Amino acid sequence: MPLKIQPRVPRGMRDILPQQMLLRQYVIGEVEKVFQRFGFEPLQTPVLELRETLMGKYGPDAEKLIYDAQHREGKEELSLRYDVTVPLTRVVAMYPELVKPFKRYQIAPVFRAERPQKGRYREFYQCDADIVGSKSMLADAEIVTMIYTVFKQLGFKSFVTKINNRKILTAIGERTGVPPESLGALYRSIDKMDKIGQEGVVDELTKALTDERLGNKRLSLAEAKKTAEQTVSFTRLYDGGWPELLRSHPLAQQGFDELDQMRKFLDDTGVPVSYIEIDLSMVRGLAYYTGPIFETVVTEPKIGSLSGGGRYDELMGLFSNQSLPMTGTSFGIERIIDVMDELTMYPASIGKTVTQALVTVFNRDLIGASVRVANALRAAGINTELALDADGLGKQLKYAAAKSIPYAIIIGPDEAAAQKATLRDLSSGEQTVVAESEIAEAIKLKAQS
Amino acid sequence: MPLKIQPRVPRGMRDILPQQMLLRQYVIGEVEKVFQRFGFEPLQTPVLELRETLMGKYGPDAEKLIYDAQHREGKEELSLRYDVTVPLTRVVAMYPELVKPFKRYQIAPVFRAERPQKGRYREFYQCDADIVGSKSMLADAEIVTMIYTVFKQLGFKSFVTKINNRKILTAIGERTGVPPESLGALYRSIDKMDKIGQEGVVDELTKALTDERLGNKRLSLAEAKKTAEQTVSFTRLYDGGWPELLRSHPLAQQGFDELDQMRKFLDDTGVPVSYIEIDLSMVRGLAYYTGPIFETVVTEPKIGSLSGGGRYDELMGLFSNQSLPMTGTSFGIERIIDVMDELTMYPASIGKTVTQALVTVFNRDLIGASVRVANALRAAGINTELALDADGLGKQLKYAAAKSIPYAIIIGPDEAAAQKATLRDLSSGEQTVVAESEIAEAIKLKAQS
Repeated sequence: MPLKIQPRVPRGMRDILPQQMLLRQYVIGEVEKVFQRFGFEPLQTPVLELRETLMGKYGPDAEKLIYDAQHREGKEELSLRYDVTVPLTRVVAMYPELVKPFKRYQIAPVFRAERPQKGRYREFYQCDADIVGSKSMLADAEIVTMIYTVFKQLGFKSFVTKINNRKILTAIGERTGVPPESLGALYRSIDKMDKIGQEGVVDELTKALTDERLGNKRLSLAEAKKTAEQTVSFTRLYDGGWPELLRSHPLAQQGFDELDQMRKFLDDTGVPVSYIEIDLSMVRGLAYYTGPIFETVVTEPKIGSLSGGGRYDELMGLFSNQSLPMTGTSFGIERIIDVMDELTMYPASIGKTVTQALVTVFNRDLIGASVRVANALRAAGINTELALDADGLGKQLKYAAAKSIPYAIIIGPDEAAAQKATLRDLSSGEQTVVAESEIAEAIKLKAQS
Repeated sequence: MPLKIQPRVPRGMRDILPQQMLLRQYVIGEVEKVFQRFGFEPLQTPVLELRETLMGKYGPDAEKLIYDAQHREGKEELSLRYDVTVPLTRVVAMYPELVKPFKRYQIAPVFRAERPQKGRYREFYQCDADIVGSKSMLADAEIVTMIYTVFKQLGFKSFVTKINNRKILTAIGERTGVPPESLGALYRSIDKMDKIGQEGVVDELTKALTDERLGNKRLSLAEAKKTAEQTVSFTRLYDGGWPELLRSHPLAQQGFDELDQMRKFLDDTGVPVSYIEIDLSMVRGLAYYTGPIFETVVTEPKIGSLSGGGRYDELMGLFSNQSLPMTGTSFGIERIIDVMDELTMYPASIGKTVTQALVTVFNRDLIGASVRVANALRAAGINTELALDADGLGKQLKYAAAKSIPYAIIIGPDEAAAQKATLRDLSSGEQTVVAESEIAEAIKLKAQS
């Protein structure tokens, strides 16, 4: 006999109880509908991946957060997936027969051992849609259009998708004199501009560029400060035209061309100009992006980033000789659900329970009558609960109220003899006696009105 | 730069590609509909549980198969869930405020390091519905009625739910002289009766009862053989009445009473008698069952067990002082999906793709026209793909055919000038020219006919 233990979940993880699950299923269902509307198809990959599949893809900070797994006789090194993007890349490399472009979505839990905090969990759902096999900026524009459609569909009014291009960021680094091995530090500093301001970025980047770990490539304090200041001014320069000093850098030129093409396509797809913003200080954290990157921020109420993504044309090259270009986005579905819950952005039809009616049991002798009515309602498409114990009508009605079930059905001796039932509307208290065969129809009529 | 690696999945795990996922989503959706029809609500628990939550619940053979997990700085001992029943029990103990009876379903992946074989995976979905907080046999009868409804809904014609009661099995053990610590061995042997026959069970059980590991309680060969033979004859005795020798055992009596009540309630719920079979040799593997157990076997074609479950009134006592009775069932959803795929038990509307139309791109100059049409179709509710590269109409139509997309839309210079488009039915080859604004309606009409 094992010892009694405290019922607990692991740190940073949680249960989602039924009422919350109904909201969750609604949001995920709406997003999934838009994914399918744009021709994305569902894919499922295992929660566990070989460790070697994940390593060397996300950058060193991210890799520290990966969970490992094993079983008693296991000889493989296994990890829990960190995202669904690297698994997608593995899938595409593994099944060359997949018709391209391959457009897939995946909505599934991922695992990251980050410090838990309010609204941030170590197991959370990712909700991604990606296009594999097209270099065209129309693919990126389609992704941004889909993001716009998702947020509109969910009822968000004020949001903006910031767009940038990693090629431009890399060019800024090269132009200002950031050593290639410090590009990661450059990205990380710029990424904080919203939080720490331009001066904060200059300070932080100066520190990074004089860091001893750079060895020979270490810049002097004066050089580093100048590099950092130039970097910041480049990322703030854009105001309709492209800065000439960058324009002449071939990689930046390519990046600007890609941005121009995306803007043109976004005009075609009909995303209003006010929803798009070119922001050269927007970076995205992950290591693997190579081209356009995008991030959607809800501005009213001020909520922050709810979706991000970009193009990652080199990732598949780590699995396969024949590499394919990829682009896509990930919705912060946990945060979206939280926000929609807080702001009650749900249609009234998303109730607190799936159950439409409780069939009560009057006494032990009348159980059979109640069972028959419950099954008839179910056959007629009404989600129905049957009271399981003949433990008093009052208690059963209290249960229905506690669960917010809208209707109760009562079958006493008189009703049973006449093949009738009392239908009680639990919000109004209104009662009507109807023939057994007409209860389902009566509930459907009431639900419509 | 990390080394290039072979794209592979862990042993016994797999990807589910889009076509297969569509079938999967259909089956799971149908089961979920029935769960909700019976008033079960969705619950989500973490993939990872504390190791202590899982240990001591399933029996020693099962526990060997559990995967453990950890991260770099983790101080907790974590495991991947083995089923969703123990997590449910933990949830009920953790949230005493949940209204009872608590009826929940959960459809989610679980992990067992079993020897991989055809159709058996180390990560697979469980699909469970359970009732917490009712001792009534009506709860068990509701579960069996729901099982019946699920299989009917999925289109199975010939199946039978075998019913037994663990109390009777325990009584058989006591009556025949099996030492209490050998009840597990007793269950495991009887469980194989279908495969190894009555004599096989006698041999195996005799061996178990003379096993040295029993120490003092070890039976002599003669005693063990007699015990085994009596056990087998008890499990084969039932033919309408209950064997008198067992009837007089209080625990067996309780078990028979429970079976009688269930049969009465099943008459009320309207499950045809031919779908129910009392089988005293049906055992179920897991350690935690305490009362009625059930297992559903598809008989035509001969497929075997696709669902199993039972009552486990003691499990929660391992987490909480205030224990609650529980009963429920688990559908072998992976096997059900495989079988339905093999037998093509799907409605024709479950296609090979979610996409209803491909909007082709005639040439670079006409991309804008195609983009506009694609977005109009999406707004009208048609799942639409847009060709991403102007790389020749032939290639685009081949893509649509390879993906089994039913319709292609072609917008050449003439069509674009006249705000029209050519709608091609890709199965018949039939083409019609329609106004841009009428394409969606035309596709909807064709899809209905």
